[in-house]
Amino acid sequence: MGEGSLRVAMRDHPQGQVTEGDFLIEETARPVPGPGQALVRVRYLSLDPYMRPMMNPVRSYVEPLKPGQTMPGATVGEVVESNEDALPVGTHVACMLGWQEYGLVTKETARIVDADAADISLALHVLGMTGATAHYGLLRLGDPEPGETVVVTAASGAVGGIVGQLAKIRGCRVIGIAGGPEKCRYVKEELGFDECLDHRADDFEQRLSELTPDWVDILFENVGGPILDAILPRMNDHGRIVLCGNISDYDRDEPYGLKGLSHLLLHRVNVYSFVIADHREYWPQAIAELAGWVKDGRIRFREDIAQGGLEGAPAAFINMLTGRNFGKQLLEVAPASVDHPAGN
Amino acid sequence: MGEGSLRVAMRDHPQGQVTEGDFLIEETARPVPGPGQALVRVRYLSLDPYMRPMMNPVRSYVEPLKPGQTMPGATVGEVVESNEDALPVGTHVACMLGWQEYGLVTKETARIVDADAADISLALHVLGMTGATAHYGLLRLGDPEPGETVVVTAASGAVGGIVGQLAKIRGCRVIGIAGGPEKCRYVKEELGFDECLDHRADDFEQRLSELTPDWVDILFENVGGPILDAILPRMNDHGRIVLCGNISDYDRDEPYGLKGLSHLLLHRVNVYSFVIADHREYWPQAIAELAGWVKDGRIRFREDIAQGGLEGAPAAFINMLTGRNFGKQLLEVAPASVDHPAGN
Repeated sequence: MGEGSLRVAMRDHPQGQVTEGDFLIEETARPVPGPGQALVRVRYLSLDPYMRPMMNPVRSYVEPLKPGQTMPGATVGEVVESNEDALPVGTHVACMLGWQEYGLVTKETARIVDADAADISLALHVLGMTGATAHYGLLRLGDPEPGETVVVTAASGAVGGIVGQLAKIRGCRVIGIAGGPEKCRYVKEELGFDECLDHRADDFEQRLSELTPDWVDILFENVGGPILDAILPRMNDHGRIVLCGNISDYDRDEPYGLKGLSHLLLHRVNVYSFVIADHREYWPQAIAELAGWVKDGRIRFREDIAQGGLEGAPAAFINMLTGRNFGKQLLEVAPASVDHPAGN
Repeated sequence: MGEGSLRVAMRDHPQGQVTEGDFLIEETARPVPGPGQALVRVRYLSLDPYMRPMMNPVRSYVEPLKPGQTMPGATVGEVVESNEDALPVGTHVACMLGWQEYGLVTKETARIVDADAADISLALHVLGMTGATAHYGLLRLGDPEPGETVVVTAASGAVGGIVGQLAKIRGCRVIGIAGGPEKCRYVKEELGFDECLDHRADDFEQRLSELTPDWVDILFENVGGPILDAILPRMNDHGRIVLCGNISDYDRDEPYGLKGLSHLLLHRVNVYSFVIADHREYWPQAIAELAGWVKDGRIRFREDIAQGGLEGAPAAFINMLTGRNFGKQLLEVAPASVDHPAGN
């Protein structure tokens, strides 16, 4: 086993749109586990929209990244060295090692993943943070009733796709919004939403009105911007907006000016914001329930796994930010284990 | 007793700012109570911001007004004829008779007011809808903890003034925002807020930052627009926004574009919208509690009572909309009873 470990850091705060030049890639020493620690070789890295605002030099729900800091992120991998009995060599774990090839975990910072039950990459989306986000946001905060109308933006995305399928399981009428006919077809035909509207289409607002004759009870919002402004006038009395993302603003120099605040007031619409990391106690039940639905085929998903190892992370991240991915954006950091004796 | 009754109706939907020409004043026949009904002679009419969006030809939390319809509104008055044992002649009641001199009520549509306990005009604000709004919005939805920082916009207004005093009773640090030094002085010196900032001052945003070193836990929002955008970056993690009004938009042709949506997401801020009329079951407890605090002098208020009878309603309404009133805007529709034998 070699001693090196690549990492990708933020070179400097991006000016407007992120470019590959905003990152630096460097070889570091592979860390050595201390007492209670295990060394994990990363297999997959999750690339997510929330990473973008962390690159800005402003207070956020985490500390802003400083130039030179390793990019953060959720990872799955295998334990390759261990001083922790609960994490023997060969164990698969989900952990937050960020954009690097190797990192240290403890039993508090690693969640053991059953590699026999499902591909371990699922622990980074439908059976991980993404799934827990969709489950908590829709079922706990949105609290849908059968027959209600649910609108989901970024419906072909990792969270949105699960949200809509959960809403269908709950007996709701579900309208997705996505960019382009290919994504819309996927959302309607593969994921089973009742409808999916292309927000780039000229008749988007008119079609949205036609498809919501009984108004919108729950909006699961991942996008913000003009799409949100188009939906706000359609909100029903006592509607609920689950604010999960505002991806349309992340790459603007100036935030979008949202015009529809009065609709919240007029229709007694509540807006719920959350970060799933605040609700760790909720994860196990959500993931167990989701695993059952995945096994039954009631929840489907797509992965978009970028190849090329850690060097490909900036390009794959930019691809995801600009909506060119299709399904949950992952990076394969390393192939299945070959270089340690205890690999499975 | 004469047979006439003046009423003020909306002549047509206003174009932009409301003018007196948007109203028509006419004499109608005084209605005759049927079985279970009582005729009320209106003493005071409440003039409130919510009336403005009702004049627009768009769906609202009530049906939009149609040209020729009597302007709606809360009133207090005395029963002058009655076919309802529960409402004998001479009873004082709060009711929703709108902009007219006389109207019919039933025991379901009238709330009996104790004229000996406090001036009956208080039933139109601190001991009525305004007080219930402040109480429900701050104490039920905002749910303040001692030591939290509460910001109140339109702090010298009928709702805002009560909200800040309730927050002080709960042990919060309270910062008001109002327009102009005179209102700010009133809010700080008479109402006892910890601070009050003039949003027209050049250093408003800087002062707001200085005064919220521990961020803002609860924003009670009556105004919206650029003032709201100035406050959003100051919200604390898990902050709460009680959205009670958006008065800055009511008279704009184009709504303000709110830029700070991302702050909600980043700090897990929830936004609660409500209309107090949805929560009638809450009123009695709130009003009883408020009456105690008014008696103790812990809740103070100002009334701005326009004279001139119903003919003065449009001018008084416009005055209130443009922020030229000081305290709760009322109109004295008629002086204390002189023209019926059972008056007190």
